[in-house]
Amino acid sequence: MTLRDIARLLHAEVVGDDGLEIRRVAKIEEAGEGDITFVANPKYARFLASTRASAVIVGKGLVAPADAATVPALVRVADPYASFLFVLQAFNPPQPPLPPGIHPTAVIDPSAQLGRDVRVGAHVVMGARCKVGDGSMIAHNVVLGSDVEIGAGSLLYPSVAVREGCRIGARVIIQPGAIIGSDGFGFAPLPDGSYNKIPQLGIVVIEDDVEIGANCTIDRATMGETRIGKGTKLDNLIQVAHNVVIGEHTVIAAQTGISGSTKIGSHCMVGGQVGFTGHIEIADGTRIGAQSGVHRSVTEKNTTIFGYPAIPQRQALRMMGTLPQLPDLLASVRELKGEIEQLKKES
Amino acid sequence: MTLRDIARLLHAEVVGDDGLEIRRVAKIEEAGEGDITFVANPKYARFLASTRASAVIVGKGLVAPADAATVPALVRVADPYASFLFVLQAFNPPQPPLPPGIHPTAVIDPSAQLGRDVRVGAHVVMGARCKVGDGSMIAHNVVLGSDVEIGAGSLLYPSVAVREGCRIGARVIIQPGAIIGSDGFGFAPLPDGSYNKIPQLGIVVIEDDVEIGANCTIDRATMGETRIGKGTKLDNLIQVAHNVVIGEHTVIAAQTGISGSTKIGSHCMVGGQVGFTGHIEIADGTRIGAQSGVHRSVTEKNTTIFGYPAIPQRQALRMMGTLPQLPDLLASVRELKGEIEQLKKES
Amino acid sequence: MTLRDIARLLHAEVVGDDGLEIRRVAKIEEAGEGDITFVANPKYARFLASTRASAVIVGKGLVAPADAATVPALVRVADPYASFLFVLQAFNPPQPPLPPGIHPTAVIDPSAQLGRDVRVGAHVVMGARCKVGDGSMIAHNVVLGSDVEIGAGSLLYPSVAVREGCRIGARVIIQPGAIIGSDGFGFAPLPDGSYNKIPQLGIVVIEDDVEIGANCTIDRATMGETRIGKGTKLDNLIQVAHNVVIGEHTVIAAQTGISGSTKIGSHCMVGGQVGFTGHIEIADGTRIGAQSGVHRSVTEKNTTIFGYPAIPQRQALRMMGTLPQLPDLLASVRELKGEIEQLKKES
Repeated sequence: MTLRDIARLLHAEVVGDDGLEIRRVAKIEEAGEGDITFVANPKYARFLASTRASAVIVGKGLVAPADAATVPALVRVADPYASFLFVLQAFNPPQPPLPPGIHPTAVIDPSAQLGRDVRVGAHVVMGARCKVGDGSMIAHNVVLGSDVEIGAGSLLYPSVAVREGCRIGARVIIQPGAIIGSDGFGFAPLPDGSYNKIPQLGIVVIEDDVEIGANCTIDRATMGETRIGKGTKLDNLIQVAHNVVIGEHTVIAAQTGISGSTKIGSHCMVGGQVGFTGHIEIADGTRIGAQSGVHRSVTEKNTTIFGYPAIPQRQALRMMGTLPQLPDLLASVRELKGEIEQLKKES
Repeated sequence: MTLRDIARLLHAEVVGDDGLEIRRVAKIEEAGEGDITFVANPKYARFLASTRASAVIVGKGLVAPADAATVPALVRVADPYASFLFVLQAFNPPQPPLPPGIHPTAVIDPSAQLGRDVRVGAHVVMGARCKVGDGSMIAHNVVLGSDVEIGAGSLLYPSVAVREGCRIGARVIIQPGAIIGSDGFGFAPLPDGSYNKIPQLGIVVIEDDVEIGANCTIDRATMGETRIGKGTKLDNLIQVAHNVVIGEHTVIAAQTGISGSTKIGSHCMVGGQVGFTGHIEIADGTRIGAQSGVHRSVTEKNTTIFGYPAIPQRQALRMMGTLPQLPDLLASVRELKGEIEQLKKES
Repeated sequence: MTLRDIARLLHAEVVGDDGLEIRRVAKIEEAGEGDITFVANPKYARFLASTRASAVIVGKGLVAPADAATVPALVRVADPYASFLFVLQAFNPPQPPLPPGIHPTAVIDPSAQLGRDVRVGAHVVMGARCKVGDGSMIAHNVVLGSDVEIGAGSLLYPSVAVREGCRIGARVIIQPGAIIGSDGFGFAPLPDGSYNKIPQLGIVVIEDDVEIGANCTIDRATMGETRIGKGTKLDNLIQVAHNVVIGEHTVIAAQTGISGSTKIGSHCMVGGQVGFTGHIEIADGTRIGAQSGVHRSVTEKNTTIFGYPAIPQRQALRMMGTLPQLPDLLASVRELKGEIEQLKKES
């Protein structure tokens, strides 16, 4: 691999000879000729003067030391650590989680259609009329209900269950134990105080390039679709209720819960353990702090909110900063009352 | 199906000819003779004048337009949208999630007793002395430990695990990935700071008509029973600790956690992400707002509480309403102090 | 079993004849000669005078009634109820969750190494080069990726998934549905607003004597290890992100979430639904109240914190105690303002 290949992989620019042949990835103190390494922390910039690496991945602002005899070629990127991991992975491609082929213990309905190079693990169950796109991998003990569609190049890890009729795009990754298409939570009260289960007739649609974390639960719509937009990433143990719509390239941290029919925009960032009430809309680009309770729609784009209930960040920070002063404030007011009584007597 | 049949299904009254034959369910703008449709939003009442549907499901308060040439038969219900879904389901009965019979890959202990018309999916494991009632369905990759009992007409979705000795009633629905009967969380501290696992010898009892959401965890009792009462509905990812008792027809939203030995009454409604401390009792009919922290027993029936810690709703709303004013309040008090100092000097 | 055997089991002292033969465990009102029972609540101490049990497990401070004709032998312990359960279990050893041997439906890679007396359930999948120590039990439908190592005497309940390369110690218990080694949640933003998945190349290490609750998710490290220290106990539905390190003998209640690279000390106690931000360190012996949001490192050992954000307990209690007074405080300040205006006019 030449430095040019690496630069292309990282969408990066090279300072130095980009025709250099790179043969290995190494720690900066162990690197030698033909090796690439990285400096993520500017305070280690001095290593650039002493390393014998042929190339170093560095941050955009990093300044090479002036006294360096020979400076290695530099690959300038936004995030040197992540970039290093991409290069490390390129040199050591991960073993696919499944061997080629269909495991003989898999139970696949004869009407299911599998693309080229689909891998299916042991004890998989695939229902009637399922379609799985080229190169997708369905790991051990996964269950697909009838009429499930999965695009090309997707990967479902062990023990995932996808219920009937749900549609999953291309290059989607679903971590182990996630449940797609469980019934939405809807019950009509009867006069005697018991409940009648409201039919949940819709499906879940997961668009291309989405990642769903371990043990997440994504409920099917009452009618129509629960939808997760292209490129959106969900961490573990997230609850997505019926008829929720999440936009594109939104990132949501673990254990967040989204109530029914709420719409979350594109390019949002949501912290962990956040709760969304139902039937609200969150504008594109909203950022929400961890453990917030979002009770109202956010109409303005690109704002940051947090708290319980969630309010604009600046306001929330001011408010939370004053909370610990509350006991002293109470004492102050009590004192002021006394002083005013005194003044009133005197006047 | 006649309109009379539909009225019976919906516990509803008909305004018009209830002998009408209904052949199809359709959208209001597409409906014709023999079709039934619905109006959920009163502002669409004007469609009643123009629709060619034979019958319309409407809310109890909806007034038909005075200028309508021919008004269709009306089916008056509390919740037109849910009712429409019930009728839609009656016309299009869902495909059962499993075909009839026992899949040959299921591993069923010879001592297990299966009722009539039990369906068992692929790769199911059923331990010694299990009993499954008539017409129940045990979907793919479900594991039942020994001595598990399941009543008639229940449905366990894929990848559910029920550990040894737990008892599940009739017409219970368990969504995929839920775990019933995992060990309660109890450890006795030893002098060296390590812990000794306290035996968890009890079971879980799930009464008739309960629904358990995807990836819920219901722990077995230390001794005796963890119990979920008849008709109670749990959303996804809910944690129910050892020896918890939940009453009848209580509804609990996703990601709520209930600590050990707490008793929740009947006909309660609990929001999402609520936390209950252990060993408290919640009266029948209590309503609890999302993300609340319930630290004390609720002894009065039919109250509404929320907040962290949860307090009566009116008090909580007043309190939370004042929070954003806190920074201004601090400034005011500071100012008042100054003015009093001034007054004291002057007096 | 003699009373001496029982005392040894409970790390307890006996008051009376420790050579007594104990044959049965019984309730205090039903116990007779040869039986052992317990009194957990001091107000039932009077039963000591009337019981016909040969021995009673009692708390350290319990005083036997002075008027008792014959007092049974006493076994003094810190926690009589838990101790009673240990004795009950000793008399009724639990049935192992699996029969001896390897179930014929298990799919075990030929390169896997199983120790003596390993039990493997139905539909288990075990990848290449897995190692399972003597006496461990791998229950039905568990999936182990390649290169997973499990020590001796561990127990993985049904539907657990352990991804490639993770290492689990001896005497570890993993409740059903837990996921070990799912990908950490890391994405590098691209200029077009989409994300590039950062390789997650590390593993999870679970040390000896750990217990992991049902449906927990423990992510693998980006590089290196996510580590759960010896003897630590996790309740259900807990999220442990990549590169988290938890010390030894720490106890964490259900639904808590720990963000990436956070380090939690040894001998900590963490309540349910707590959230930890990433990259912080929590000192040994810290206690954290349920539903807290921990945003900063805790450097002093053995403190108690809670709240959102979590602050020292005493401060948090004072602050939360004043919150309900906030509306009255606002009214007071408004009143004071008026009075000062009045005084200013008068002066």
